[in-house]
Amino acid sequence: MNERDARAVFTLACEPGDERVGTFVAQHGAVEALSMVSRGALRGGIRDRLAKSLASHELAAAMRKVDACGGVFLTPEDPLWPKQLDDLDVAAPLGLWCRGISELNDLGQHSLAVVGARAATAYGERIASEVGSLAGQSAVTVVSGAAYGIDAAAHRGVLAASGRTIAVLACGVDVAYPGAHQGLLERIAENGLIISEAPPGAKPHKRRFLVRNRIIAALSSSTLVVEAALRSGSLSTANWANALGRPVWGVPGPLSSATSAGVHTGIAQGEMNIVADLSNVLDTVKPDQLLRSPQLTDHETVILNALARGPLTTGQIISASQLGNPSMQAQDVLGALTMLEMYGVILQADNGWKRSESAFRSHVDS
Amino acid sequence: MNERDARAVFTLACEPGDERVGTFVAQHGAVEALSMVSRGALRGGIRDRLAKSLASHELAAAMRKVDACGGVFLTPEDPLWPKQLDDLDVAAPLGLWCRGISELNDLGQHSLAVVGARAATAYGERIASEVGSLAGQSAVTVVSGAAYGIDAAAHRGVLAASGRTIAVLACGVDVAYPGAHQGLLERIAENGLIISEAPPGAKPHKRRFLVRNRIIAALSSSTLVVEAALRSGSLSTANWANALGRPVWGVPGPLSSATSAGVHTGIAQGEMNIVADLSNVLDTVKPDQLLRSPQLTDHETVILNALARGPLTTGQIISASQLGNPSMQAQDVLGALTMLEMYGVILQADNGWKRSESAFRSHVDS
Repeated sequence: MNERDARAVFTLACEPGDERVGTFVAQHGAVEALSMVSRGALRGGIRDRLAKSLASHELAAAMRKVDACGGVFLTPEDPLWPKQLDDLDVAAPLGLWCRGISELNDLGQHSLAVVGARAATAYGERIASEVGSLAGQSAVTVVSGAAYGIDAAAHRGVLAASGRTIAVLACGVDVAYPGAHQGLLERIAENGLIISEAPPGAKPHKRRFLVRNRIIAALSSSTLVVEAALRSGSLSTANWANALGRPVWGVPGPLSSATSAGVHTGIAQGEMNIVADLSNVLDTVKPDQLLRSPQLTDHETVILNALARGPLTTGQIISASQLGNPSMQAQDVLGALTMLEMYGVILQADNGWKRSESAFRSHVDS
Repeated sequence: MNERDARAVFTLACEPGDERVGTFVAQHGAVEALSMVSRGALRGGIRDRLAKSLASHELAAAMRKVDACGGVFLTPEDPLWPKQLDDLDVAAPLGLWCRGISELNDLGQHSLAVVGARAATAYGERIASEVGSLAGQSAVTVVSGAAYGIDAAAHRGVLAASGRTIAVLACGVDVAYPGAHQGLLERIAENGLIISEAPPGAKPHKRRFLVRNRIIAALSSSTLVVEAALRSGSLSTANWANALGRPVWGVPGPLSSATSAGVHTGIAQGEMNIVADLSNVLDTVKPDQLLRSPQLTDHETVILNALARGPLTTGQIISASQLGNPSMQAQDVLGALTMLEMYGVILQADNGWKRSESAFRSHVDS
């Protein structure tokens, strides 16, 4: 059994966010940790559940299920793993079950968590939808939880603007919860990603919703709370974002609205910044350098065109560039690659370079 | 001519808030300043206007007008002058024309400025009215400008709760501006005060509204902005309050509301505290010790009862208290007087002590 499979077994047997398990796996690696458990480590229920998982071939079943919906299981060792999750330390997920068309590390790079009340008001849903739409237009990924109310409005807003969105679920990525959101979840998977710490088929539990919120916060550059009553669960996402040192924003609403009371109190207590203009929130998440340099040089444009059909090695880019512009030297190509990477327009791929689709789209639009 | 009349002449001839005149009068006293002007000081239009005022007996006419509406002209030398206006330094008013039933120093002691847009929304007017009502119930005086929108709603809210309110006008205290507020202004005068730097009969000028705002801010312990568009005039009141080191509060509203944009920006820029609960705002203005000590001792109660029919000297209080409670010693009375004064429930009067009506009412209600 390899490290990836061993981590998957832990996600089958353990509740997400169990820091005792996180610490244990971080110390020993998942393969060795499993072996230590079989030799008597980790007393109590966890050991029994791990043994049961291994005996019942749950892993193979889970892998078949995630395959069936076109998904994958990602671990921190994977190059596509979003590095910002490492900020969670021992509370980091052991792995993420993913379903969708995009690559998580790319999609999570300039992302905004949009969270809030399930029992949202029409005002709150309109704001969430508008944020989603602005994010879609700005190549900012919206991360939310696919719940009723604010979550759904945010996902729908970004989808309507042909943007990218990530739904972080408290159940398996193949489980439609809430049931009424089956269509929405399918559209999210077709235009972005659905991710979960829980394995395919897992049912949502109340506790998992709060634990799931730490992934939403950690994956995102900033967190925006649109509406939240006092002691609302969505405030836990804001608390995680604050603990991680990420900016937290709160949308003001009528003083008399109970679903804005948690936001107003959060602002009053310095836990959130008040949103005076939604575009300010987007500005803090958007790729900075890209915005500051809307004009590419001729050399940079040649390289971007060369990368239009897919990833290329540095040598292939030099050849292709010189076809497009015979006066271009190898050194010009290296300089332009450095600038494009700094702008966030291209990324280092396995054997060379590729376009960062979201950033590229925003760049071309602007 | 005495100091008071000389200051009144300055208010007849000069625009309110002219710091050159304020500095000149502060340095020399108003009587000497007038005499210096007649000998050639203060070149330019001001000298001519002062000379014209003196020659045309405008002072006597103004005094007749303020008498006719039952008002007075107050100067900083007057014991009823609210000391908090001295914080304005050379921008302090030279004097205040007052019309109403209350004493300005008493009324201004625990006061909240409630300001905001003329073109207020129904939401804003409802909040302003609610603040007025809460203030009326809490013995907090509401200071505002009697304009359309937020101002009027705040005055009406406090009047409906049988509270006290001060309207600071940009025109004479006998001028109904706006005309539609004639009835409101009469009710304010009957239940509180109308004050102005401009003499009776003065018409409002655009510039005077902004200058007037510094009096609203300086008279009040805190300023609450209910609704304000970006660059709204009511933000000048908030700026003055900040400059004077007084707390400024802003009421959140829908992000999409243009009349809340100035408030949201003010909160975002740290110029205002967000209001999460209106009662928190009132708490910062209410007499602190009074709130912290809702229970009076028997001795304190005996003294308050003795003062129920009007002011008494310390000797009279000792006699009256010993009638009410024969075991009470002179020293008990002096101790209780000290505590009651600290609570803000009684005030030093000319020859002794009197109840502070507003604080007393709140105390008895609670």
